[in-house]
Amino acid sequence: MTERIYNFSAGPGALPLPVLEEAQRNLVSLPGVGMSVLEISHRSKTFDKIIEGAEAKIRKLLNLSDDFHVLFLQGGASLQFSMIPMNLLSKGGKADYINTGAWSKAAIKEAKKVGQINVAASTESENFVRIPKQEELKLDAEATYVHTTSNNTIFGTEWHYDPEVTVPLVCDASSDILSRPIDMSRYAMIYAGAQKNMGPAGVTMVIMRKDLVKEPPADMPTMLAYKTHVDTKSMYNTPPVFSIYIVDLVCQWILDLGGLEAMQKLNQEKAKVLYDAIDATEFYRGHAHTDSRSLMNVTFRLPSEELENLFVKQSTAAGLDGLKGHRSVGGLRASIYNAFPKAGVEALVEFMKEFERKNG
Amino acid sequence: MTERIYNFSAGPGALPLPVLEEAQRNLVSLPGVGMSVLEISHRSKTFDKIIEGAEAKIRKLLNLSDDFHVLFLQGGASLQFSMIPMNLLSKGGKADYINTGAWSKAAIKEAKKVGQINVAASTESENFVRIPKQEELKLDAEATYVHTTSNNTIFGTEWHYDPEVTVPLVCDASSDILSRPIDMSRYAMIYAGAQKNMGPAGVTMVIMRKDLVKEPPADMPTMLAYKTHVDTKSMYNTPPVFSIYIVDLVCQWILDLGGLEAMQKLNQEKAKVLYDAIDATEFYRGHAHTDSRSLMNVTFRLPSEELENLFVKQSTAAGLDGLKGHRSVGGLRASIYNAFPKAGVEALVEFMKEFERKNG
Repeated sequence: MTERIYNFSAGPGALPLPVLEEAQRNLVSLPGVGMSVLEISHRSKTFDKIIEGAEAKIRKLLNLSDDFHVLFLQGGASLQFSMIPMNLLSKGGKADYINTGAWSKAAIKEAKKVGQINVAASTESENFVRIPKQEELKLDAEATYVHTTSNNTIFGTEWHYDPEVTVPLVCDASSDILSRPIDMSRYAMIYAGAQKNMGPAGVTMVIMRKDLVKEPPADMPTMLAYKTHVDTKSMYNTPPVFSIYIVDLVCQWILDLGGLEAMQKLNQEKAKVLYDAIDATEFYRGHAHTDSRSLMNVTFRLPSEELENLFVKQSTAAGLDGLKGHRSVGGLRASIYNAFPKAGVEALVEFMKEFERKNG
Repeated sequence: MTERIYNFSAGPGALPLPVLEEAQRNLVSLPGVGMSVLEISHRSKTFDKIIEGAEAKIRKLLNLSDDFHVLFLQGGASLQFSMIPMNLLSKGGKADYINTGAWSKAAIKEAKKVGQINVAASTESENFVRIPKQEELKLDAEATYVHTTSNNTIFGTEWHYDPEVTVPLVCDASSDILSRPIDMSRYAMIYAGAQKNMGPAGVTMVIMRKDLVKEPPADMPTMLAYKTHVDTKSMYNTPPVFSIYIVDLVCQWILDLGGLEAMQKLNQEKAKVLYDAIDATEFYRGHAHTDSRSLMNVTFRLPSEELENLFVKQSTAAGLDGLKGHRSVGGLRASIYNAFPKAGVEALVEFMKEFERKNG
């Protein structure tokens, strides 16, 4: 086997090594089944066990009540940006969206095609360096729901409070799902592309309160109606079998670690090592405000773009891959999702110290 | 490694063993990359090579001209059932659909939500035992396109001619894609869920003539506009990376066999062994008319439902898995897609002879 390097990519992200090793062992033939997970029928008992197992583990991790459905869909968060307003808003209905970055903006753009969208708060004028405070939210009394983005990969910010709202709260949690406990009594719906914290690309998890699922209008595409997927237990058509299998293994890995409290503790420890290194010197500057810092994506700048480019080049050569920041922020971004090892963060901090010593 | 059994499932279907073995070897770490394909960024050079490689191989296999785009999408053929009329029909536009089975019906249902749909031919009254003949097609002179389903998994029928039409011909080829050469000069668009003949579940290939791609209406969900995916080379959002990787390996496997002519020859040989066994006795009866028989899904009945149930039970126990027919036809169905080995068909035929000897 080739050696593994440290994958700081913003997504798809690193997966737990034990998960990859188990998937590898069974890739040609699942024990007792005689075929690969890549080949099994989605109507087989083997797959029933996998998808039911994944759902049960997600329910356990998030302490979900029976008031919620758990769905496994395709199309990423981007398709959810359309499905949410199409399913939740009535004709001409209103919704509140909070704009905390590029993905919020994409959600707003799609929602505006369907209903009257009020941007209840935005930190765009500050290049999204922070999450708005509760008192900044200008909520519309007629809104059907409020939409948030819990973690902003590009800017490295994350919500550290659940907003107070009086209508269903809908959250795109693609980049911090299962990285910390969520008080699901505060949310009506959360959704997430799996490829950062819970699996490979190709499956999107949707958790929604049962009362949100309505009979769709007659002209809605069947695949875009949540009711279709609820009624068929995510098997209206062939689901992404292998991706769901990996999600199941990842959820088991988190349970084995001790669940979301333990996961959060690990993530806090990893992020602290890196933020402490950034705060210890003037050479590195964090992009996000301290109280909005993300535990998943750590964004920081160097004294010049030249040095930033040199940093990317040399860190990549040193086996620290994917550190180049998004062009809207510049600089560096270290994505340290659930499965990213603490040793990788420590290696990065060592590299940062050495880089500063040589170039500071 | 556990032994492998014969997987006669209608889909997801069997994958080539060399493909599974290569994917297994590289699952923890791609040589020279240091991470799993399940973890690599879709914006990485590694993935660029994979998706470009898959496209190049598909172009080579189908002898595609530069007049066509090749897209890798999510949502299966079922989402295409909506995207096609939404993108191809203008307001109130017309289209012809040919109804050859359950999947045609699903396509018609979605298209009717968008435009005026003429069912130009249907064999539903005969329980879809055959494909309509050219002279039966009652095409609408005002149709924008004609839609067909090239192979009908449930009924075991397959088109053995390309219909003569004067407007763009759109074909759902989910269950026989890459199983035989296609004269792409006759088609404006073909699409296919990968999970039967070209890969695992979770990716949908769309091949469409460039002139079909138009600026979408302002209120169309971004994810449902073909132009979105054309403009971004299938990377508007995170594509199903691993599924595309497997498609690339499967296409290479077909090229190594000698391309689609060689693939077709193998498929003809496999199907002949089975149809000959069915035709050799009154005990087994084929469902499809001889001139409409599918090379992919072989449907047949036994003298009684009791015997059919016994056959399913005993064949499953003998390592011949997934032979139970769909409830709309009853009886047995042997799905023998590209990667299904000839030895498996021979094992089934042996089992059939023995079963008849004991129960005939």
